[in-house]
Parts: sequence; C-alpha cells; structure tokens
Amino acid sequence: MPQHDENLRNLAGLIKEIGVCMLTTVEQDGTLRSRPMAIQETDFDGTLWFLTDSKTAKVYEIGRENHVNLSFSHPGNQKYVSLSGKAQLVHDRAKAEELWTSQHKAWFPQGLDDPNLALIRVDADKAEFWDSPSSKVQVVSFV
Amino acid sequence: MPQHDENLRNLAGLIKEIGVCMLTTVEQDGTLRSRPMAIQETDFDGTLWFLTDSKTAKVYEIGRENHVNLSFSHPGNQKYVSLSGKAQLVHDRAKAEELWTSQHKAWFPQGLDDPNLALIRVDADKAEFWDSPSSKVQVVSFV
Repeated sequence: MPQHDENLRNLAGLIKEIGVCMLTTVEQDGTLRSRPMAIQETDFDGTLWFLTDSKTAKVYEIGRENHVNLSFSHPGNQKYVSLSGKAQLVHDRAKAEELWTSQHKAWFPQGLDDPNLALIRVDADKAEFWDSPSSKVQVVSFV
Repeated sequence: MPQHDENLRNLAGLIKEIGVCMLTTVEQDGTLRSRPMAIQETDFDGTLWFLTDSKTAKVYEIGRENHVNLSFSHPGNQKYVSLSGKAQLVHDRAKAEELWTSQHKAWFPQGLDDPNLALIRVDADKAEFWDSPSSKVQVVSFV
C-alpha cells in the first residue's frame, strides 16, 4: 500500500516536527479534558509512549475510559494532526529509561526510581492530518 | 474575584493569540476525534462560536454527545489551553454574518445563503491553561 506508507511517513514527520500534543481524556461525567504532553524522539509507528505520574487524573481517566485523542497543532504552518487511539498505564523500567530525558527531572526529582513514575502507552486506531492551507484531510488507519 | 478576572483575561489573551483550536468530539463507539477550527476575533467571555457545515460528522457527534474539548497549542512558546464545555448546533443568520470572513468562501461558495451553513456554539464549563515553561496549570471555572 504505497499511499498508506506515504501518509504514515508524512504523519510521523508532522508528529516529530510539532513535538507536543494535547492528550484528551474523558472524565467520569463525560467532560473532555486535555493537557500538553511531549513526544519522544523516536519515529512514530502507530504507538506513542509518555512518562507520567501514576497518581494523576489522566491515569485515573484512562483506567475508566481508554479512548483518547492526541491533537498536534502548528497554527503558524497550518499543520494539524488528530490521532484517535486507546491508552493504557504500563510499568516498564527499561522503556522508562529509554524515554527519560533531563527535562523529566522537574517532574520526577527522584528520577527513574520515583515510585509514581509510570508510562502511558497510546495505540493509534486512526489518524487524520492536515499539512497545508489548501490540503484536504489525509487519513491513516492502523486497525 | 480579582484572581478569576485576571485568569480569564490571560485565558482570553491566549485564545486570541493562538487563534486556532482542535475541537475534540466523541463518536458513537467512544472514539475521540479532533479537527482544527479557527477562532473569531472577538474577546472570549466563556462562549465560542464557529461557522460549520451542518452536514459534517462533528455536527452529528455533538448532537449525540455534547461534551467537547477545545485545545489550543503553541509549542514554540510553550502555551497551551484546554477548554472543557458543551456544544450545540445553532441556526442564526445575524450571528453567521458577524462571524463571516472572506476565508469562509472556500468552504461555503454560496456564502451566507448556503443552506448547509450553521453555527456551533461552545459554552465553557472549565478551562485550564499553561502559559510559560515553568508555570503550573491555571484554572478558570465558568459554572
């Protein structure tokens, strides 16, 4: 599927370029809430990982309703990504080490030994992206 | 409430500065989906209006589940907004005229007489924003 491959390559490029997404989760009463999350450096292949504090509201929310949206915006360049997927909390020391950067110290002063340090894994079901003012939406399916 | 007023002023400034949000809606199977939407020029006071085609998926989605999130991102300046609210479809010619700009012609070649032209009104319940690298989240409640 050369079109799928090209779209996936363009999508991965946008995700890397924009670098930060807003992770939207669903609260118990249906409220939709989002917060910024930095993207790791590796190339996107359908799964995204985030270091997180396991005691935060977003972890509680994905435990109850695992559907999430990751939105990436670069209004200056008119580039946007909507990634629909499912999130889960994962405890994986090796993966945490792989993702750890010095910037994480602000959130986890104890470093990788912080007992609340965990991972959110998001597996994409579908992504839609807009990468120029005139372009229509492009779609990449993962399921 | 001077703190509330200051936070609302800062929030309104961020919304105007970033200018485009990702509107996240919930599909019937729980999938969360987002798409870019431009913000009108007027100062934010708790309600946001968008011109829309009434035959689009997002209109169907808010008719079934009116909880939405509007996320605003400016990764370069590390500024982010999450606005949780409820959306409804509104038909209001005077409001549509107020929001109309020449850019809308690309979507509505017939202009304000396009039979599918309608409005999405979003009333905020709560907004959270981050406006500097070191700052904690600021919260503005509307209910």
